[in-house]
Amino acid sequence: MTPTRGFPASEFKARVAKAQARMAEEDLDALLLTTEPDVRYFTGFLTRFWESPTRPWFIVVPAKGDPIAVIPAIGAHLMGQTWITDIRTWRAPDYDDDGIGLLAETLCSITRETAKIGVPNQMETHVRMPLCDLQRLKQTLKTREIVGDQAIVRSLRMIKTAAEIAKISMACNIAERAFARVPEIVGAGVPLSKVFREFQALCLHEGADWVPYLAGAADQGGYGDVISPASDDPLLAGDVLMLDTGLVWDGYFCDFDRNFAVGEPSTAVQVAHDKLMDATQAAFAIAKPGATMCDLFHAMNAVVNPGGAGSDAGRLGHGLGMQLTEWPSIVPVDHTPLLPGMVLTLEPGIVVNGDKIMVHEENILVTDGAPQFLSNFQPEKMRIL
Amino acid sequence: MTPTRGFPASEFKARVAKAQARMAEEDLDALLLTTEPDVRYFTGFLTRFWESPTRPWFIVVPAKGDPIAVIPAIGAHLMGQTWITDIRTWRAPDYDDDGIGLLAETLCSITRETAKIGVPNQMETHVRMPLCDLQRLKQTLKTREIVGDQAIVRSLRMIKTAAEIAKISMACNIAERAFARVPEIVGAGVPLSKVFREFQALCLHEGADWVPYLAGAADQGGYGDVISPASDDPLLAGDVLMLDTGLVWDGYFCDFDRNFAVGEPSTAVQVAHDKLMDATQAAFAIAKPGATMCDLFHAMNAVVNPGGAGSDAGRLGHGLGMQLTEWPSIVPVDHTPLLPGMVLTLEPGIVVNGDKIMVHEENILVTDGAPQFLSNFQPEKMRIL
Repeated sequence: MTPTRGFPASEFKARVAKAQARMAEEDLDALLLTTEPDVRYFTGFLTRFWESPTRPWFIVVPAKGDPIAVIPAIGAHLMGQTWITDIRTWRAPDYDDDGIGLLAETLCSITRETAKIGVPNQMETHVRMPLCDLQRLKQTLKTREIVGDQAIVRSLRMIKTAAEIAKISMACNIAERAFARVPEIVGAGVPLSKVFREFQALCLHEGADWVPYLAGAADQGGYGDVISPASDDPLLAGDVLMLDTGLVWDGYFCDFDRNFAVGEPSTAVQVAHDKLMDATQAAFAIAKPGATMCDLFHAMNAVVNPGGAGSDAGRLGHGLGMQLTEWPSIVPVDHTPLLPGMVLTLEPGIVVNGDKIMVHEENILVTDGAPQFLSNFQPEKMRIL
Repeated sequence: MTPTRGFPASEFKARVAKAQARMAEEDLDALLLTTEPDVRYFTGFLTRFWESPTRPWFIVVPAKGDPIAVIPAIGAHLMGQTWITDIRTWRAPDYDDDGIGLLAETLCSITRETAKIGVPNQMETHVRMPLCDLQRLKQTLKTREIVGDQAIVRSLRMIKTAAEIAKISMACNIAERAFARVPEIVGAGVPLSKVFREFQALCLHEGADWVPYLAGAADQGGYGDVISPASDDPLLAGDVLMLDTGLVWDGYFCDFDRNFAVGEPSTAVQVAHDKLMDATQAAFAIAKPGATMCDLFHAMNAVVNPGGAGSDAGRLGHGLGMQLTEWPSIVPVDHTPLLPGMVLTLEPGIVVNGDKIMVHEENILVTDGAPQFLSNFQPEKMRIL
């Protein structure tokens, strides 16, 4: 069933209330948010216009009360359709002052003179505004200080609500249907670039709003990496074809891949594929409250890389939601406890034929009981094209 | 004719040589680049993997010699296929030190103790690394200082080479073919969301590598904004449908839109559309060396908004290339002189029926003589579906 698009205002209010409770604990007087997912998380402002680097966008979460949007005038109409009512605009791009004066005025009007204003500053974040404007903001704020947000936004976004999970699940279902149709577009002799174009079209036909991410590879008995764009080389018998998507429904991602054998796979490829399945199942089996992210790492690593410290990929999975990849990572040093509502990718990789790799990826939901696959785990043998 | 993918090493070497000449003038000992287009501009590193926010990527351009890549190990294989030979990696994500130690070591090894290291810090830029890591880098560098790049990267990227122009032109041609097929997918009663999905599929079928951007709208006698995602509302007779893409070929964008009338357009819509055409032609006519960006603004504004200071969009066009929108902007305060090799969008907007707008957009190339349309300007009446 297709979920409802958007969220009720109550969902955003709950997010703000949780943030404000944590802000009080951390003695933060406001949060300042500048990136697409963080702005959208508290407002519902969904647009592909972030593809343009020109304009900065600011959301201020005060210690009490609703968020304030400080945004370019071009976004006022769309922001006006969200639950946000305090929308302050300037006509951007403004070469003299691209919103910094208005932002500083806003921050000063809702905080005391010794205020601490938190911005996400840890791994996987950045501040989306020009560095010179950040310096200007600091100077304009004078006694008020910009500090880290103590990972408040990250920790909130890590736990998904039922409405968010429904959207991720919808994205996964769309991708599953597209993967099921891969035989329609693939065969020996078809250029990989054509496979990529047509697979993205399949994702759209099956209901994706857009396809922000598609990577993959095809090479004899495995591939060199998993982040390359497609070449124009034709598929050959003996190739392992991997497609990894990255499609979006109502602002939420899936992120999983499928491997296909072009012609009968070699024994080495079959063995590697079976180990990837086993590794995924080993992590899935323990993905419950009480386990931690590093437990998932060790469960998978013991199968695909026994005795080794990990691969060049650096991790064996990660969070998933409003972004293709989210906090936390499945690495040996991550002791984040698994909690109900976390959506994760399990993404083991294995070396095959000495200098090639294969990677498998599934999307799962952590619950208070057994985990659930959001992608449709298929433990049978590798699909042959 | 399809251009060759990628660039010869000579193209990158020329970019580096120009940067280094400017660095010498500005007394910069190195450039530090962190964003997708800036990294790609000097290396050719093309991947959609930037969709993941997890890993930082660093390119160091020294005062002399080739750029150095300081990147996560997962990218080593792909970077190894570019012209870059000095590739230094760490296994990211590393929770203790996510590349900052390696980056600082690299910077220190190629610069004197009092070095100034430039990062792009003006409008339309940001530093793509966690704020805490930027602070850590500054501390680790001690006597070496991080400063602005004096707009060196922006000014280089503003002037396109013949090879770059061929790619943008290819993207424009693909979009033209997709726009020509819009009647296949559109009609009264079709939900706008379906139009969006199918238009993106048309772009892919016509040869787009991917479609990072599609915005648009459909409403009675004009629309409310130009940055919204699609609703599920069906198209109605009397709607003006606008589609604005945003597709990529070999890493280069087109960015233009087309308006369609669903059924016979009203006189107000027809008049508005004609004025948008006239405004575009007025700017096109003067888009030659000797003119400046603000001249283009006034040429268009005199037609669509006589006596007014500009619209909420804030500008009437911009640069185009590796990003959907690039420096500079067509605004009254931008006195950048037009130079051969600049690729621009002309993007006039007009108020229609009091509270609606219509926007038109074309892509042009500035040469040493008459400008050229890269999109295929069609001065006939609005297309009716």
